[in-house]
Amino acid sequence: MEQKMKQITLTPIGKVHSSFTEPLSMGKDYETDPEGWKTRMKAYQEKVRTTVSKLVIEDQYEELLEGIEDFSHILVLFWPHLMDPERCKRTKIHPMGRKDLPLRGIFSTCSPARPNSVLVTAAELVGRENNVLLVKGLEAIDGTPIIDIKPYSRNYHLIRDPQSPEWMQRLHEDIGC
Amino acid sequence: MEQKMKQITLTPIGKVHSSFTEPLSMGKDYETDPEGWKTRMKAYQEKVRTTVSKLVIEDQYEELLEGIEDFSHILVLFWPHLMDPERCKRTKIHPMGRKDLPLRGIFSTCSPARPNSVLVTAAELVGRENNVLLVKGLEAIDGTPIIDIKPYSRNYHLIRDPQSPEWMQRLHEDIGC
Repeated sequence: MEQKMKQITLTPIGKVHSSFTEPLSMGKDYETDPEGWKTRMKAYQEKVRTTVSKLVIEDQYEELLEGIEDFSHILVLFWPHLMDPERCKRTKIHPMGRKDLPLRGIFSTCSPARPNSVLVTAAELVGRENNVLLVKGLEAIDGTPIIDIKPYSRNYHLIRDPQSPEWMQRLHEDIGC
Repeated sequence: MEQKMKQITLTPIGKVHSSFTEPLSMGKDYETDPEGWKTRMKAYQEKVRTTVSKLVIEDQYEELLEGIEDFSHILVLFWPHLMDPERCKRTKIHPMGRKDLPLRGIFSTCSPARPNSVLVTAAELVGRENNVLLVKGLEAIDGTPIIDIKPYSRNYHLIRDPQSPEWMQRLHEDIGC
């Protein structure tokens, strides 16, 4: 008999403080107004790129940050805590809710609603004040629990020329990233 | 009073099948034999780059993989299950156990022993057979629980010119990556 998967328990190491206060509502009106949707998403992406978020790490972990300021970028692992658990049970979606894009399995998309919603973003580290890191490029809302901070590693994280399907290229073009 | 951090529970979605059967033992003899250490690490890195691992995803999640084969690279999130929990309580280390490199906080290193040991590797996707993904470049030992599979995203994961401190550049040079 197949051995049952053993559960893993995580305790967040801190929280995001951000001017993003609610999850992006997306795609509802792409079909009726594609250009309006694109304009709205481009503005949102620009806001993500330029907004500085604070990663407030618990005091007990401050020492673990020593030397992080020597990296230009970090990998932030976080947990979208406001996600409806029912959404995480979906198997396939139209990326960003767009019916004009093909139905794809959740693991083939960047949807935050996944069986284990550990989200990973490479963010620019713009400063550190003791237990607080200042980063740019993080699409996490205020209060989001942080799971891990890692240096962005050329060895583990950098793929210079990743190939993606046509639908994702179209999406990137539409949202300006 | 500060609200206590709420725990997060994950259930692995599959397991790694690999010819790597035990964690890399490293650094013990760097001081006594630096050149031997470098040679051994370079050989190990080369093995990591060329070894094909199987990601065996649970049957119930097979549908979630639909379309993943259209990506050249994926992000694999996994859990180093053989890690001694005591090691995860350390605050600072010499990277890869090398006393010649500066003592750094765990969050500033790529050590797998962390408060939440969710490891992240960008791997080349070389094939798919139903619920099994074949990847290159994954340094996870046989039996490692898989937490998530994501498409490698130019938007969330690619930093073209990340800057790292001198010690990490030296380490990369020494291990040939």
